[in-house]
Amino acid sequence: MASISYQLAAFCTRCSIHRETNKQKLHCVKINGNKSFSAGAKVDFLSQEHKMAYTSIDQYSADQNVHMIKQEVRQNIPTTKQLVDPNRQGMIVDIEEGVGYRQTVVIRSYEVGPDKTATIESILNLLQETALNHVWMSGLLSDGFGATHGMMKNNLIWVVSRMQVQVDHYPIWGEVVEIDTWVGASGKNGMRRDWLLRSQATGVVFARATSTWVMMNQQTRRLSKMPEEVRAEISPWFIEKHAIEEESHEKIDKLDNNASYVHSDLKPKRSDLDMNHHVNNVKYLRWMLETIPDEFLENHQLSNIILEYRRECGSSDVVQSLCEPQQDGLIKPGIQQSHHISLNGNSFSSEIFDENGLLRSLNQMPFSYTHLLQIKGETKNEEIVRGKTTWKRKLTSIPFLP
Amino acid sequence: MASISYQLAAFCTRCSIHRETNKQKLHCVKINGNKSFSAGAKVDFLSQEHKMAYTSIDQYSADQNVHMIKQEVRQNIPTTKQLVDPNRQGMIVDIEEGVGYRQTVVIRSYEVGPDKTATIESILNLLQETALNHVWMSGLLSDGFGATHGMMKNNLIWVVSRMQVQVDHYPIWGEVVEIDTWVGASGKNGMRRDWLLRSQATGVVFARATSTWVMMNQQTRRLSKMPEEVRAEISPWFIEKHAIEEESHEKIDKLDNNASYVHSDLKPKRSDLDMNHHVNNVKYLRWMLETIPDEFLENHQLSNIILEYRRECGSSDVVQSLCEPQQDGLIKPGIQQSHHISLNGNSFSSEIFDENGLLRSLNQMPFSYTHLLQIKGETKNEEIVRGKTTWKRKLTSIPFLP
Repeated sequence: MASISYQLAAFCTRCSIHRETNKQKLHCVKINGNKSFSAGAKVDFLSQEHKMAYTSIDQYSADQNVHMIKQEVRQNIPTTKQLVDPNRQGMIVDIEEGVGYRQTVVIRSYEVGPDKTATIESILNLLQETALNHVWMSGLLSDGFGATHGMMKNNLIWVVSRMQVQVDHYPIWGEVVEIDTWVGASGKNGMRRDWLLRSQATGVVFARATSTWVMMNQQTRRLSKMPEEVRAEISPWFIEKHAIEEESHEKIDKLDNNASYVHSDLKPKRSDLDMNHHVNNVKYLRWMLETIPDEFLENHQLSNIILEYRRECGSSDVVQSLCEPQQDGLIKPGIQQSHHISLNGNSFSSEIFDENGLLRSLNQMPFSYTHLLQIKGETKNEEIVRGKTTWKRKLTSIPFLP
Repeated sequence: MASISYQLAAFCTRCSIHRETNKQKLHCVKINGNKSFSAGAKVDFLSQEHKMAYTSIDQYSADQNVHMIKQEVRQNIPTTKQLVDPNRQGMIVDIEEGVGYRQTVVIRSYEVGPDKTATIESILNLLQETALNHVWMSGLLSDGFGATHGMMKNNLIWVVSRMQVQVDHYPIWGEVVEIDTWVGASGKNGMRRDWLLRSQATGVVFARATSTWVMMNQQTRRLSKMPEEVRAEISPWFIEKHAIEEESHEKIDKLDNNASYVHSDLKPKRSDLDMNHHVNNVKYLRWMLETIPDEFLENHQLSNIILEYRRECGSSDVVQSLCEPQQDGLIKPGIQQSHHISLNGNSFSSEIFDENGLLRSLNQMPFSYTHLLQIKGETKNEEIVRGKTTWKRKLTSIPFLP
């Protein structure tokens, strides 16, 4: 299995977030003297220049004060396990034979698409957010994007190798969603992180997700065994429970240039980079979904996605997105099949018939697409991620249900 | 002033959200009978087909039950004024001589950019979210994206004509932000909506914003006077306070094809559409910002943005983004000016000198860009939005501060 430095869920590469106590204090900088600067003479000159240049010294001073409030105080990352975080609406909860993290979120107006249901991108974002908040609450969050203190010491980062998200129902704008997340062992050196999204009002499950993580040395970029001190940190949190019981382990085929749909020359933009300067996971997904014909997307909703990560994608990479409808079903979804057929005076889409004339789409038989994102090289292409998306017809497009 | 149907802040075009009481109940559909369907004979046939097609009737039944839970119950929009919403962490608060809405949010991991500060896009999203939640809490939210009951009756929607956001400091990942928003009169027939974003820990102001709204008839697309019944609904919420005291009223110049930077053939994607099927405001901003050279964006942060809306942009429009550095300052920001100059043994960027050799960038003198988004027509272009962005050098790029 190839490894990548990718920031979806719990833990990943380091950023300069400094651990600190929970005390809230301001660090002020004296502007018109030189105490706060290292070279006195230079500072005298500079402070005069500042004086001239600033419309108001007060303004400058205020700017500097705020700038100098240490990030750790502003973030307030706990160094010991917290049971409740009222600001995040998060808490440690019992999950079967162990504990996990639960956060309540309200689906925001900008997290929904034209059909007023949460987008799959928003759901992926919430998975990342709750995973990081779980680590945050555990008191293990160190100087990085999810790495623990023991990982920091050993120069290790988390990399994700696989991810599956299964969406039964999409929450709507304003709906209150409870997200549970927990971790478990994955082989000797890996970790699983699972999620369960439920309606707070009805308890109905919206979505389930699972992911697999391994450790990588940040310098050598080689996979690493889990050091004992890291195991000691995280294994007390391990639970056996799986969010997706019927987890698929089928291998995703590698597509080649004969794929039905190809989008080339995809370039990450500044706004696609996350705090690790890597292309954000949601962008990967968007590149995959944008390769599927619009006509298909209009009538279908994503019910399952599997992602197999191969390598990281940086800001200067030029990406190609390949996509192929699944061949092994009776129905190959495509625009060309959207003819209408009249039956008993009603008009139905031909997509709902197979060769035997049976009504098929009524059962929401899943359609699938296989995906590949790769970096187009001159002699060789490099895989970033393989994917498989599975789709259901939208309920509203069944013509005879009220 | 031209009008547009644009969904940034408080109120906009209608969606099919039905007002309902706060009761929580499930609406079940009987599957194997025909009670729930309108045509008995057809239904008998269909229910059999369903039976065959579904791997499990229970699964189908569960799907339908969930699908039929009325959206209003799931959203739970209040019909009377609420003082506190624990799920949203929002409450009605006293703001000077009236009341407004306050919501506490934690900056999420996916809302920050590579520098770990909230992106301007995230800030705009939070403005929209809090504005809508304010209407939600007021008990006035009707069957639409912010329209009141009186507006619904009169077939009116809100359209935004102007927006200004001033960012002093960007909150960082994990920081707790208090967002206040309130409304006021704007002339006889308009409404102002303002926002103030503060650090919960220190009280320091992160950002201030103001916007102006007018009403439009949804069918005729013509601007409308504010009907008395709508005035009666919203005017009790009006406050005189302005978030931005030194509000700029300068007119933004219209750019033409001689603009320094032009991006053409910008096409909205499915993921850019909001629940009103219009291009999302954040996409407008992104189109504007992506026209500015990367080299400039790396060293500067947006401190002020003014947007003047002219017309709406639909999903099939092809957009052109024009951008011009401000000419009237001493310094025209550009990549070509980023040479380094040695002074007293220190190397400074030439951008910090003007023609007189004075240190200028130390004072963070603002640089500006003028923007235009337009729909390129064969004979005539149609303006969507004019913009002006003002920028400060990032503090970290000043070489001699610790």
